[in-house]
Amino acid sequence: MSSFHFELLKGTAQGPRLGRVHTAHGVIETPAFMPVGTAATVKAMHPGDVAATGAQIILGNTYHLMLRPGADRIARLGGLHRFMNWPGPILTDSGGFQVMSLAQLRKITEDGVTFQSHIDGQKEHLTPERSIDIQRQLDADITMAFDECTPFPCEKDEAATSMALSMRWAKRSREAFQDRPGYGIFGIVQGSVFADLRRESIEALLPLDFHGHAIGGLAVGEGQEMMLKTLDVTTPFLPEAKPRYLMGVGKTLDLVESVARGVDMFDCVIPTRSGRNAQGFTKRGTVNLMNQRHADDPRPLEEDCTCPACRHYSRAYLHHLFKAKEMLGAMLLSWHNLQHFQDLTAAMRAAIAEDRFPAFREQAWASWERGDIEAYA
Amino acid sequence: MSSFHFELLKGTAQGPRLGRVHTAHGVIETPAFMPVGTAATVKAMHPGDVAATGAQIILGNTYHLMLRPGADRIARLGGLHRFMNWPGPILTDSGGFQVMSLAQLRKITEDGVTFQSHIDGQKEHLTPERSIDIQRQLDADITMAFDECTPFPCEKDEAATSMALSMRWAKRSREAFQDRPGYGIFGIVQGSVFADLRRESIEALLPLDFHGHAIGGLAVGEGQEMMLKTLDVTTPFLPEAKPRYLMGVGKTLDLVESVARGVDMFDCVIPTRSGRNAQGFTKRGTVNLMNQRHADDPRPLEEDCTCPACRHYSRAYLHHLFKAKEMLGAMLLSWHNLQHFQDLTAAMRAAIAEDRFPAFREQAWASWERGDIEAYA
Repeated sequence: MSSFHFELLKGTAQGPRLGRVHTAHGVIETPAFMPVGTAATVKAMHPGDVAATGAQIILGNTYHLMLRPGADRIARLGGLHRFMNWPGPILTDSGGFQVMSLAQLRKITEDGVTFQSHIDGQKEHLTPERSIDIQRQLDADITMAFDECTPFPCEKDEAATSMALSMRWAKRSREAFQDRPGYGIFGIVQGSVFADLRRESIEALLPLDFHGHAIGGLAVGEGQEMMLKTLDVTTPFLPEAKPRYLMGVGKTLDLVESVARGVDMFDCVIPTRSGRNAQGFTKRGTVNLMNQRHADDPRPLEEDCTCPACRHYSRAYLHHLFKAKEMLGAMLLSWHNLQHFQDLTAAMRAAIAEDRFPAFREQAWASWERGDIEAYA
Repeated sequence: MSSFHFELLKGTAQGPRLGRVHTAHGVIETPAFMPVGTAATVKAMHPGDVAATGAQIILGNTYHLMLRPGADRIARLGGLHRFMNWPGPILTDSGGFQVMSLAQLRKITEDGVTFQSHIDGQKEHLTPERSIDIQRQLDADITMAFDECTPFPCEKDEAATSMALSMRWAKRSREAFQDRPGYGIFGIVQGSVFADLRRESIEALLPLDFHGHAIGGLAVGEGQEMMLKTLDVTTPFLPEAKPRYLMGVGKTLDLVESVARGVDMFDCVIPTRSGRNAQGFTKRGTVNLMNQRHADDPRPLEEDCTCPACRHYSRAYLHHLFKAKEMLGAMLLSWHNLQHFQDLTAAMRAAIAEDRFPAFREQAWASWERGDIEAYA
């Protein structure tokens, strides 16, 4: 087993980059999009079909898995890869974000967070050390440092206090992580939308020698423009030789613009969540398949897409499945949407490799997703 | 295109039979189990995966499809095979049974049935002629005659009146059916549990020269013993050279005992419905995967099963998926259950071919499903 490492094939600390992350369970080509498998399943997908879309790594949620079925149980059953039949690399988050967004009666202290499970009301305590231990039990190839996701909007002094706590927790996380060949831990840059706080956060992380860096606290309501501005003052200061992961992002053009700013990895629930809600992503825009105008449409959702939803079915059929509340609708559209995001990152990798990313970026803006659901005909 | 026909490879009018039904969209080996694709989808299954279980024919429901998305729409979109991406044979029921069980404000006259759609309250009228026309629009390989499914229990004079109406509708159905190469229509024997009414029904159907015969009005609450007694006084009188289809049946031992009595074809929602409700069929009995005792069980649901649920996952994982209400639970267990019923009919075909059906039947009773969910360890 070679050690966990990143090969930067092309690019620098700024601008689009092409790379490879080497992990215990395989290689991830970057820029990479990671489908989210919250509760040990990428919703409505057989894992082999997730791999068939081109996904090389998926994300698991520490918060959900620690509550149900329990990290110790998954460990006894051979780890998360075996439990959910995903032999490739897995990244787990630290649980910090979900504690803030899902759990009840949260109480944050220097030690960690006490909260009640949203499933059964059970009282739980999560610390940097416990989060890292859980992620080790899950057998995550990439462990995330435990942090506090600073809410948005947020006054600067609050953002500073929150970031400082996350940096102390990052140190404890790094110390709790047991270095093993093929396994890595990423630190998370915080600091909300404030450039100097982002710099300060990076300075705090650098001595801890993480295997990669995540950019946290974005895609929480600040909007695309402010998100990209924050990337502009963050990615140039991250070490060139380590992968960068923008957490919880995003839509088509968010990815394109973030890659333009030196981001290597992404995760988002949007392909599968939209897939369950009849919203399909295409290269020309998003499509709401519940709309009656699809009822008689014999065309595929997207002509040149290779996914089964587009190869074997009409828009009329997909519309029918959603109207009839049939599971196959969610199954097919989740597949299509995952394919869309994998095709997008593959196209970006090709464009970077062939030195034509600027043209690709321009074309994406001219023709791709603008959130204008009904403009698509 | 050869004509619709049945090859009886082994057997007579009574006892287990081995055969092949030749249709416009392919050959069905009998005894055959037909998964139900009510609303143009076998619930929670990709159609390619349904075929992978060994299924050679599926069933579509006229009642559901006429209401949504509409038979004329499916016809415009190229027929049901193309609409739902199932290139193999399809049998459609006549809509009669669902009108009785699902629709509101039903009114039966000599002409047909008037009812309100359970979906939008729209008033609809279904006659033998309209049912046959809809099934032609759907492009069903096997069309079913329009009948009234006699309720159970039922006084003999009511059963006689209902059967007589169904026989008049059978004649109108046969006349409305347009003979086309590769397409067939089955008549349906009614008469409740009364031997002489069943004989009378068969006598009424014989001159109409149907391509096959269904046995209707069973599996409606009469119990296995009475169902089998009714088969005993029905199948021997059906023409040997035509396929027999027992509608809506059933569980493992129902199939074994019906094959022993000369039935060739079955359909039932039980594999997929149970699959959505955490009930798994195995050769040793049924298993409720919601039960807490599976939470730490690393074993597959069934050791020697070839389906993905058994090859790639533990009972603990399946239990987790159902507890977490994850769609993949229904997807995997529906697949397993469909595999169970296809393996069962394949095993019966092999046993008949090798002249060891009596031993197979004995073994089935000794070891298979008895509805005792929690006895299985």
